Amino acid sequence: MANRPLKLGLAGLGTVGAALTRLICARSDDFVARTGRLPEIVAYSARSAGERGLPLGGAHFYPDAREMAAKADIDVFVELIGGASGPAYEAVRAALARGVHVVTANKAMLAAHGLELADMAEKAAVALSFEAAVGGGVPVIKTLREALVGNRIQRVSGILNGTCNFILSKMEAERIPFDVCLKEAQRLGYAEADPTFDIGGFDTAHKLSILAALAFGARIDAEAVSVEGIESITLADLAAADDLGFRIKLLGVAQRTDHGVEQRVHPTMVAKTTPLAQTMGVLNGVTIDGDAVGALTLVGPGAGGDATASAVAADLADIARGVLAPAFGRPVALLAEAERASIQRHEGGYYVRLSVLDRPGSMATIARRMAERTISLESIVQKRASGDANAYVSVVIVTHATTETSIREALALTLEDGVVREKPQVIRIERP
Amino acid sequence: MANRPLKLGLAGLGTVGAALTRLICARSDDFVARTGRLPEIVAYSARSAGERGLPLGGAHFYPDAREMAAKADIDVFVELIGGASGPAYEAVRAALARGVHVVTANKAMLAAHGLELADMAEKAAVALSFEAAVGGGVPVIKTLREALVGNRIQRVSGILNGTCNFILSKMEAERIPFDVCLKEAQRLGYAEADPTFDIGGFDTAHKLSILAALAFGARIDAEAVSVEGIESITLADLAAADDLGFRIKLLGVAQRTDHGVEQRVHPTMVAKTTPLAQTMGVLNGVTIDGDAVGALTLVGPGAGGDATASAVAADLADIARGVLAPAFGRPVALLAEAERASIQRHEGGYYVRLSVLDRPGSMATIARRMAERTISLESIVQKRASGDANAYVSVVIVTHATTETSIREALALTLEDGVVREKPQVIRIERP
Repeated sequence: MANRPLKLGLAGLGTVGAALTRLICARSDDFVARTGRLPEIVAYSARSAGERGLPLGGAHFYPDAREMAAKADIDVFVELIGGASGPAYEAVRAALARGVHVVTANKAMLAAHGLELADMAEKAAVALSFEAAVGGGVPVIKTLREALVGNRIQRVSGILNGTCNFILSKMEAERIPFDVCLKEAQRLGYAEADPTFDIGGFDTAHKLSILAALAFGARIDAEAVSVEGIESITLADLAAADDLGFRIKLLGVAQRTDHGVEQRVHPTMVAKTTPLAQTMGVLNGVTIDGDAVGALTLVGPGAGGDATASAVAADLADIARGVLAPAFGRPVALLAEAERASIQRHEGGYYVRLSVLDRPGSMATIARRMAERTISLESIVQKRASGDANAYVSVVIVTHATTETSIREALALTLEDGVVREKPQVIRIERP
Repeated sequence: MANRPLKLGLAGLGTVGAALTRLICARSDDFVARTGRLPEIVAYSARSAGERGLPLGGAHFYPDAREMAAKADIDVFVELIGGASGPAYEAVRAALARGVHVVTANKAMLAAHGLELADMAEKAAVALSFEAAVGGGVPVIKTLREALVGNRIQRVSGILNGTCNFILSKMEAERIPFDVCLKEAQRLGYAEADPTFDIGGFDTAHKLSILAALAFGARIDAEAVSVEGIESITLADLAAADDLGFRIKLLGVAQRTDHGVEQRVHPTMVAKTTPLAQTMGVLNGVTIDGDAVGALTLVGPGAGGDATASAVAADLADIARGVLAPAFGRPVALLAEAERASIQRHEGGYYVRLSVLDRPGSMATIARRMAERTISLESIVQKRASGDANAYVSVVIVTHATTETSIREALALTLEDGVVREKPQVIRIERP
C-alpha cells in the first residue's frame, strides 16, 4: 500500500516537537492508510543532541536548523522553533528556496513574513502550511481556507490566547484579582515569566492577522492591528459585566467595514449566550460570520503539545496526499491590499465605568456630553464605590452603537468638566 | 488565470439547489481566484423545466437526473434530490460509473449505500464528497477526514437534527409541551408534515453512521444504530434536568468501547456547561474527542439552503483543486468491519423518572432493586405529582455509571413489585 515515505526534518524538540514525534510513531499505520505514505523523521535539530527518550530512531541530528533545512534529504521541513525572525525564519527560507515543503506553528514569523514566505512557496510549488499557528488543535485555518470557500466572510472573532482566557475565567469564577491569577497561570506553566506577549494581546494580534488574510483574501497586515491587553480589567468590571449579561473576553476581531478591514484585539463584552462567552479556561474559540453559512463556531484546546501536534499532523497528511492549496487561500498576486479601517472609526456599543463626583449635576453633565455626540445610552447603573464613602460613586454606562471617536471625545470632556475622576474604563461590546 | 471551467450537472432545484445556483453565480470570481477554475452549471434536472428566476444561463434541462448523470458533458454531478434509493441513487451510480465526480447532500443514500458508492468512486479515481450530508454548513466531514488525521477518535457526539433541537429548546425555554412545539416547527417549515423521520431520530441515525465510519475508519453500519426519538420527553423531564444541571438534547453518539463500536441516538442529559448543551434552536453541534486534540466542538447552522450550499461549494472547490481524498478517509478495502457494541452493554449514568406508590417501603424496595444490581445512586428527588394528590409521587433518580441491562432489569422488577406505576422514563446521561 505505502508509496515512498514522507521524509521529515523536525526543527525544535520542545513540548510540541516531542508530542509530534510520539504522535507520528503511534499513528504511523493510520497515516499510511489515510495517505499512502509513511511519515519518517529522518533529521532533527534542537538546542542539544540526545533523543530525550523520543522515538527518533536513526534520525540525523543537526545542531543548526538552518543547516538541516538547507542540506538534509527531506520532503518536509517542520519548524517548531518560534521567533519572528532569526534561525526559524532563515531555516524556513532555506527550505522553501530548495523546494522543500514547510509546516510551521510560528505565528510571529507568519505575521511578519507570511506573504514573502507564501510567495516563495508558490514559486517553488510546495506547501507552506500552518494549521498549528492559530488556535492550536482547532482547525480554523483549514476551515477558512477550504470549508468556507463559498462564503464572503464578514467577520472573524476569536479567543486565540489560552493564557488570557484562563486568567479572565479564573478572575470571574473565583473573584480573584488579575495579578494573583497571572501568578497562578505562571505557576501552572500557562504563562511565561515575561507574560507581556500574551496578556498584552500581541500573540492574539499575530494570530488575528493570519486569520484576517485568509478570511478576506487580503495581504497579511499585522501592523494594522489595534492592540489592547487585559491588564486593566478589574473585578468590578467582571461583576458589572455579569449584571449586564456579558462576559469579558480578550477577543481578536477582524471585520469588513465601510472603511476597509478593521483588525483589533481588546478585552470585549460578549453576551453570555454566545459560544465565545462560554469558551472558558485555556480553550480557544473562533466564530466566523459568512454570508452563506451564517455563524460558525469552533471551540477546542488552543495550546498544549498534543493538540498542536494534531494540527501539524493534519498539514503533513495533506502534503502526503499531494494537496497543494495556496497558503492564504489565493495566490499571493491575487491577495488584495485591504484598506485599513482605523480603530477611531470603529462602530459599536461601549461599556464605560466611571468614577463620578457625587454631587448634583454630575450625571446631567455626563449625559449632556454623551448627547452632544448623539450617543444613545442603553443603561446607566450607579453604585457607591466601597471604601470611597463620600466623594465619588461608580457609574457603569452601556451605550448603543456609536463611534470610537465619539465616545472618546465625550469621555475626555467629562474629565475636563471635573465631574469624573481618573481615566474611565472603556470596554467595547461585540454583538453576535 | 482560469484553466478549463468546472462543468456541473445539478440534480434538484429545491431550497439547496436554488441557493447553490445563486452562490455559484455570486462567488464565481472568488472561486476562480481560489481554485483556478470557473464553476459553470451546464446541465440541471428538476421536476419541471423553467429556471425559476435562477441564474442558470444556457444550462441544458434534463427531465431525468439519471439521464443527465449518464449523458451530460459534466465534470461533477451534484445530487440534491434526496432519498435512500430510487433516482438519486441510480443517478449517482451512473455518474460514478462513467468517471464523473459526485457531490451529494444525501445522508439516507450514504447510510444505505455509502460503501458501495465509495468503492465505485475509488475505482474510477473520482471524488464522492458529502460535506453537506451531515451538519449542514458545519464542516464536520472535512474536520474528521482531514483535520484530525493525527488522532485516534474515541467518541463523536452531536446534535445533528435542527428540528429536534428546535423543539427541545422551545419546550425548555417556554414550557410548552412537545405536541405544540412540533406544530410550531411544522408551521415554520422546520418539520415535515410527517415528522417521524426527524423526531424519531432516524435522520440523526443516518448522519451518525456516516460520522462513525469517518471517525473510526470503519465500514458504514447504519443498521447498528440504536434509535430512540424525542416524542416521550415531557416538561417534567425538562424541569428535572434543569434542577440537576442538565439539558436534554437528542444526541447521536458513536464511541469506541471494550465491546466494539457503540452507535446510539436518543434523548440525552448533557451538563449545561458543555458546548452541546449550549447549542440551541435549529443549530447543529458536534463534539469530537480525540486522543491528541482533546475535545473539539463545531457549532453552526445545520440546515437551510445557504448553509448547505456553503458545504457543497467547499466540496466543489476541493474537486476543482484536484484534491482526491478517499470518501471515508481511508480506501474502502482498509475500512474495518467494526464489532457492534449492543446498546444493552452501554455503560453510563442514567436519569430515571418514576411514578411511585406513596406508601412506606416503596422507596426501600426501589433502592433494594438498584442495590441488587450494584447500581450506585447519585441523587434521588421525590416530588408530589400535581393532580395526583394521594396515591403516587414522582421520583427522579440519577445513577452513577452502570450498564443498560442492569438499570432495565432493576426497573422491570420495581414494576413487578407493584411499587411503580407505568413504564419509567429513562434518559441516558452523557458525560464530557
